[in-house]
Amino acid sequence: MDIAADPSHPRYASLLRRHLIETAAAEGLLAGSAMIAHGRGEAYDYLLGESTSASAARATAEAWSRLRAAAHPVISVNGNTVALAGRDLLHVAAALGCPIEVNIFYRTEARMAALIGRLEAWKEEDGLDVDVLGARDDGRILGLEGPRSRCDARGIAAADVVFVPLEDGDRCEALVAMGKQVLVVDLNPLSRTARTATVTMVDDVGRVALAMRNLAASEGSRGPSDTWNNDAVLQEALDEIVAHLTSKFRNV
Amino acid sequence: MDIAADPSHPRYASLLRRHLIETAAAEGLLAGSAMIAHGRGEAYDYLLGESTSASAARATAEAWSRLRAAAHPVISVNGNTVALAGRDLLHVAAALGCPIEVNIFYRTEARMAALIGRLEAWKEEDGLDVDVLGARDDGRILGLEGPRSRCDARGIAAADVVFVPLEDGDRCEALVAMGKQVLVVDLNPLSRTARTATVTMVDDVGRVALAMRNLAASEGSRGPSDTWNNDAVLQEALDEIVAHLTSKFRNV
Repeated sequence: MDIAADPSHPRYASLLRRHLIETAAAEGLLAGSAMIAHGRGEAYDYLLGESTSASAARATAEAWSRLRAAAHPVISVNGNTVALAGRDLLHVAAALGCPIEVNIFYRTEARMAALIGRLEAWKEEDGLDVDVLGARDDGRILGLEGPRSRCDARGIAAADVVFVPLEDGDRCEALVAMGKQVLVVDLNPLSRTARTATVTMVDDVGRVALAMRNLAASEGSRGPSDTWNNDAVLQEALDEIVAHLTSKFRNV
Repeated sequence: MDIAADPSHPRYASLLRRHLIETAAAEGLLAGSAMIAHGRGEAYDYLLGESTSASAARATAEAWSRLRAAAHPVISVNGNTVALAGRDLLHVAAALGCPIEVNIFYRTEARMAALIGRLEAWKEEDGLDVDVLGARDDGRILGLEGPRSRCDARGIAAADVVFVPLEDGDRCEALVAMGKQVLVVDLNPLSRTARTATVTMVDDVGRVALAMRNLAASEGSRGPSDTWNNDAVLQEALDEIVAHLTSKFRNV
């Protein structure tokens, strides 16, 4: 990690995120495929210029305003989200007065306990008042089977607006079919999740969480848009990738 | 791995490759960052349509003809390459009568022994006559320091043409600076490795190794091109990504 120790390195932030993921993997917080998923994210973020675009910032502001306006918002986190953005999302949950729920694709009691423990420790350190859910699995996501359908009856099951970064396509579709607003973070604008969600933030989850924490700390918030066009956001992300690919090669 | 058991799944090949990487990681063949690197490859391959383009096939044919024409060719493999393409590359090495050298970025004796052992076992099973190098590190790659500079004096150090899939940018530049022809496989056409190499195959390493094995089994081979334009191959790969991004979104 010698490169990550040098903040002047042009890819410092990316290397720092990789370090967070490798550390979380070593601590048993992640499933076997989590590092592969992170690698896919690295590639898309590289193509997006490793920065937050104007359209992604708009999507995050829209997601924040929908969480603010929700009757029962919840933030659902998996292993990679906890590793990359867990602490900032605890602050967002505290500002919203909503629960944060650990909900993972490959559910094992050991990983659930480790992830809940990590969030509880940060919560304690930062003096936050947030319900950390996930230990109970008395709720169901309709249309899914087996462990993937389980959730907390007080959390995801009861929510009208779910902020679930890094969700898979099946579960995103199932949550939308249940009539919930689903707010996702996905660096691949072509993924089923990105195309199915109510609001898609095509951005790194760490940058999104920090931006949302800053929105939560600032005064005031406009209401949700009546005319949110999620496809337009995805198209803008694609356009940015194409522009970046073209300019990068020209500048070689 | 239930999805990977169904060859009719549209992403069967990709899921099978992921399974190979996860298995290799569990067996201790890979460094900690190998799965992240594989994830980056998955993303670029997805953007390329997960198939071999015409320009990538031309690059592989060119690489093959250069290996055939070389005085001292060598195939250099790291952990991911062994996991995804090791067996086919042993057949390519046998056809060329050249050594295959295990050469890894994060060199540990345990991983070196595991990778050499894996190649030796396949070699035995398939009845091949190939020198598997890597245990000796009496050669040096000039311009690099520490463990990354080490190689076998009979392999990479003595070679005029090095086929080194999945190489990092520093080592690719160092090998080129030593006057060697460097043939690489890299799914990111913008990477320093892709831009520095003599011949860049913008393709999955498993597909390249199988294609080269098929070239080795077929009669005849044209000689190397006098006018190989590697930048043109990279530009075509970028054009394919852009076309794929555009058409994919249109077809949603």
